[in-house]
Amino acid sequence: MFQTCSPQVAALTRVSLKRLQQPRFRTNISKASTLARQRACLSRTWLPTGGLAQPDKEDGHSKLVRAGYLRQSHPGVFHMLPLGLRVQEKLEKLIDKHMLSVGASKVSLSSLSSQALWERTNRLDAYGPELFRLTDRKDAPLILAPTHEEEITSLVSKLVTSYKNLPLRLYQIGRKYRDELRPRQGVLRSREFVMKDLYTFDASVEAALESYAEVRAAYSQLFDELKIPYVVAEASSGDIGGDLSHEYHLHSSMGEDMVISCNSCSYVANEELAVAKPPSQEQSASKARVWRGVSKDRTFLVNVWYPNLPGLSESDINTHAIKSVVPDLDSSMADSIAFWTQDSTPEFETSKKVLKLINVVDRRMSPSITESIKGGSHPQMFPAGSNLSIGFLENEVISSNEGGQPINALRIRDGDDCAHCESGKVKAEKAVELGHTFHLGTRYSKPLGATVQTRENVMAPVQMGCHGIGVSRIIGAVANHLADEKGLNWPRAIAPFEVVVIPGRGVEDEDVNQVYDRLVDEQQQIDVVLDDRAESFPWKMKDADTVGHPVIVLLGRKWLSNRMCEVQCRRLKVKEDVAFDELPVYINNLLSQL
Amino acid sequence: MFQTCSPQVAALTRVSLKRLQQPRFRTNISKASTLARQRACLSRTWLPTGGLAQPDKEDGHSKLVRAGYLRQSHPGVFHMLPLGLRVQEKLEKLIDKHMLSVGASKVSLSSLSSQALWERTNRLDAYGPELFRLTDRKDAPLILAPTHEEEITSLVSKLVTSYKNLPLRLYQIGRKYRDELRPRQGVLRSREFVMKDLYTFDASVEAALESYAEVRAAYSQLFDELKIPYVVAEASSGDIGGDLSHEYHLHSSMGEDMVISCNSCSYVANEELAVAKPPSQEQSASKARVWRGVSKDRTFLVNVWYPNLPGLSESDINTHAIKSVVPDLDSSMADSIAFWTQDSTPEFETSKKVLKLINVVDRRMSPSITESIKGGSHPQMFPAGSNLSIGFLENEVISSNEGGQPINALRIRDGDDCAHCESGKVKAEKAVELGHTFHLGTRYSKPLGATVQTRENVMAPVQMGCHGIGVSRIIGAVANHLADEKGLNWPRAIAPFEVVVIPGRGVEDEDVNQVYDRLVDEQQQIDVVLDDRAESFPWKMKDADTVGHPVIVLLGRKWLSNRMCEVQCRRLKVKEDVAFDELPVYINNLLSQL
Repeated sequence: MFQTCSPQVAALTRVSLKRLQQPRFRTNISKASTLARQRACLSRTWLPTGGLAQPDKEDGHSKLVRAGYLRQSHPGVFHMLPLGLRVQEKLEKLIDKHMLSVGASKVSLSSLSSQALWERTNRLDAYGPELFRLTDRKDAPLILAPTHEEEITSLVSKLVTSYKNLPLRLYQIGRKYRDELRPRQGVLRSREFVMKDLYTFDASVEAALESYAEVRAAYSQLFDELKIPYVVAEASSGDIGGDLSHEYHLHSSMGEDMVISCNSCSYVANEELAVAKPPSQEQSASKARVWRGVSKDRTFLVNVWYPNLPGLSESDINTHAIKSVVPDLDSSMADSIAFWTQDSTPEFETSKKVLKLINVVDRRMSPSITESIKGGSHPQMFPAGSNLSIGFLENEVISSNEGGQPINALRIRDGDDCAHCESGKVKAEKAVELGHTFHLGTRYSKPLGATVQTRENVMAPVQMGCHGIGVSRIIGAVANHLADEKGLNWPRAIAPFEVVVIPGRGVEDEDVNQVYDRLVDEQQQIDVVLDDRAESFPWKMKDADTVGHPVIVLLGRKWLSNRMCEVQCRRLKVKEDVAFDELPVYINNLLSQL
Repeated sequence: MFQTCSPQVAALTRVSLKRLQQPRFRTNISKASTLARQRACLSRTWLPTGGLAQPDKEDGHSKLVRAGYLRQSHPGVFHMLPLGLRVQEKLEKLIDKHMLSVGASKVSLSSLSSQALWERTNRLDAYGPELFRLTDRKDAPLILAPTHEEEITSLVSKLVTSYKNLPLRLYQIGRKYRDELRPRQGVLRSREFVMKDLYTFDASVEAALESYAEVRAAYSQLFDELKIPYVVAEASSGDIGGDLSHEYHLHSSMGEDMVISCNSCSYVANEELAVAKPPSQEQSASKARVWRGVSKDRTFLVNVWYPNLPGLSESDINTHAIKSVVPDLDSSMADSIAFWTQDSTPEFETSKKVLKLINVVDRRMSPSITESIKGGSHPQMFPAGSNLSIGFLENEVISSNEGGQPINALRIRDGDDCAHCESGKVKAEKAVELGHTFHLGTRYSKPLGATVQTRENVMAPVQMGCHGIGVSRIIGAVANHLADEKGLNWPRAIAPFEVVVIPGRGVEDEDVNQVYDRLVDEQQQIDVVLDDRAESFPWKMKDADTVGHPVIVLLGRKWLSNRMCEVQCRRLKVKEDVAFDELPVYINNLLSQL
């Protein structure tokens, strides 16, 4: 019957099918399978460690690789191995719990989305090269969704018709795709990653903000449970739209964001949004530097004039502040100087679009500089190498914002005065963004026609919110944050296991099982694993540190002599001999602090 | 502080943040959230039904859409809604349990894979247009993985070096991508779908076949638990390679596969592999028909000569049998006649490769026909419209296979004699493939260099197996299979909930909760949901049938008079009044049959 089999295979198949009747397998897998329903053992889990040798100055990502949590498959793309997936699944369960607390229903949206849908919200081009695009066999243009506002709004628009169907809260936990220019630091910034995204739908702005506040409260509870020192920063909402937004950050030297906090009041904001208080007396600067940009549609060039102070550079320009007065500024254009000077570039040649020069002048510039800019006579009007001249261009000067306030073109910096209290100074620290809440308003519901009949019997677009949590990123950020020279460390909530029990030589299996069973029983419900691998006691202790089990229980010589366990907890600097009977209470006490 | 807020939003934010201190929300979500940790209620879940009106002859997919399980997002691409995701997650848990029983560790591999990796196993082109291809911003060629043999073998090759690391069994449950030419029947054949794929790694063929047998046993237990009448068919392993393979099928009129079974012995095979017993006396056919193909590399043309019997057509050709004598036949080429006749096609012109004509002659052809084919004189040597002539081509005739058996070029058909017993007749039935086991041997380990040091101290490629289960497809197939005119039906193991409790008018909340709590208590652990939605009693009963809850408990008038529930189970044709005290035992008895 095995027509396509080689004779060898056919013969062996008969043997193996016969064996199946009387299972008696020689592998550790099969031995373990009988224990499967009873005790979790490390021998049953694939834990390919990269050896225990540890290079100096290893970052969290390398530690995750070395301890067997994950591996890179392609640049910026990762496979999760059993330990890493366990952390991820625990994090997902934690998120499920807190999403349930705000009455959110769980869905799973397709990763394939259509370019046509993204055109309706004007995001197809706005996302630029970070969007993975592809076409199917019928040449239909698709994308791999980096976020799901379009899909969920389109779905809800077909199924929700009345305010009576609202509020509605839908979330998912799944893969997202973003073609990062420079993926780095492992799952901190990868191109395929897991996110939780929650979308809220309400019939009025008031109800939407109530949803927003409820989600913020749930987020705080969720991050509290991770027991990491996160900060909540007011944020700008960027391309995602809307006008109310908070970010959840973890301070980290590996971070790519800057979070500004006051040393006196509770003010925290991300760098884009934060502004310093202008000093009561400010000296005007008589020397200028210029930052240059272009508009998205290439119809105007932008000069930002700022004081030539020591230590200042182009990276101190607050593009968020500039965009508040020049909304169409193309802040993603990295080579705007080239665009200014190389007016023979094909792009410039074909478009010939530049019609206007806009000068944004920082409040610190002296009146004489401002005058010479207005007159078009300042020597720095155009960069060296440009053959542009003011004669061809309309020349506009902006020196205050819509509210009439003078413009602060510079980012806030360490030690600036806090704008929100009397005497505080702000501190700028690198941070990793772990989560984000947005009030979106009608940014997506309007273009996608998600309207409902209101209580007042009129049709109105639904008020939306979207609320993300970076699942993969939290794994990378927490690994980074809690690791020490010995290895990783995990909060109890997302540790692959809460406790590892390592038996030394000569300890009876029965004793080991007794310890295990006492900890996992119904009353305790601790997530315990036995290290039953065929390795030495010292190797296992070192491996337990590398992997970062929150609590390590060693059954060594003292167990053999008087049933004492050594309990270790590196994060709490605990190393203590504990009697068997006291073990559950003692360990639960440790875990409650982790 | 809300610099970017509209004044309306800013004002309302203050209100809503204040409210957050004293939560008192008006929505059903918030009311439900206090119950969340206690009782599962349908009011808390998003269940967008398509109304209860039901068209005639609705298939399982339409029923899934109408009952609110899923929705199409793009052609052949689906969003799972809360009910559908619940079914999927239950199925995933069931799979996890049975994967644990064979000692498999769970991983999660990236969906993005590289074309370069697939070139190393010669599958990049073999997969053809079903492969979603894309390039990243640096023009690196990627694919969306339809299966993960390449990725897992590449991963394991880096981490496993010795027979001591084996056996190793790794599985994942995740999304796969296949750009189907004609996606249809919802999640039965979609372009983005969820699969479980298990890969086994062993140091010897013997051990690999032991793994194979263990997985087969686990698969049987898994499908047994679904309580659906599946069949296991011997199968050919197609493009995936290897030489031992079984398919798990569910008979279904919606199926696209054919499963052949004998009415006398236990023989079951898929259509590709099954062959009929030649009758003792067979009349030779004096009229011929010809099926035509080409080789993958276009170096030869293929004629398959078969008898011109009534009711036979090209679709009766058994391409599997032809490939066993012409291994390089391109069975995926749908337009081979065009290739034969249009010898001015650019492909033909540029390749000019055709060197040989191969004639495969069915055992039923008369000797005179065979002779005229050998001589190149048969009038049907070339199709009408071709200007090929035998003079340019080497002319080969094949009339028996490697074992010397005459060739049966035709597929097995209903009523043919079974080749595996004395008197049986085979039956061909449409079926849906739910799972598949393959012994792969070294098909992937060789080209990808996954070798280990053996016990005998030599390096050898690992022996692999791969074992799939179509998660999305099982949802679609089971929906189809168990649905009746009233709606869906689910096996207990994957039903979104096992029991729904529907209270009628006038029944106290306290009573409803008592029923709920009695069923979910520690001893019973039944998965119950309360239908607390603001709809009528008859509407809820009809909806419960549509959704397909295995058991329905109605608290109606008889509850009010003497605490009797009406228990309904459509699949078992049960409608019975049951006293409160007997409810758990009664319901558990029903569930054990579902």
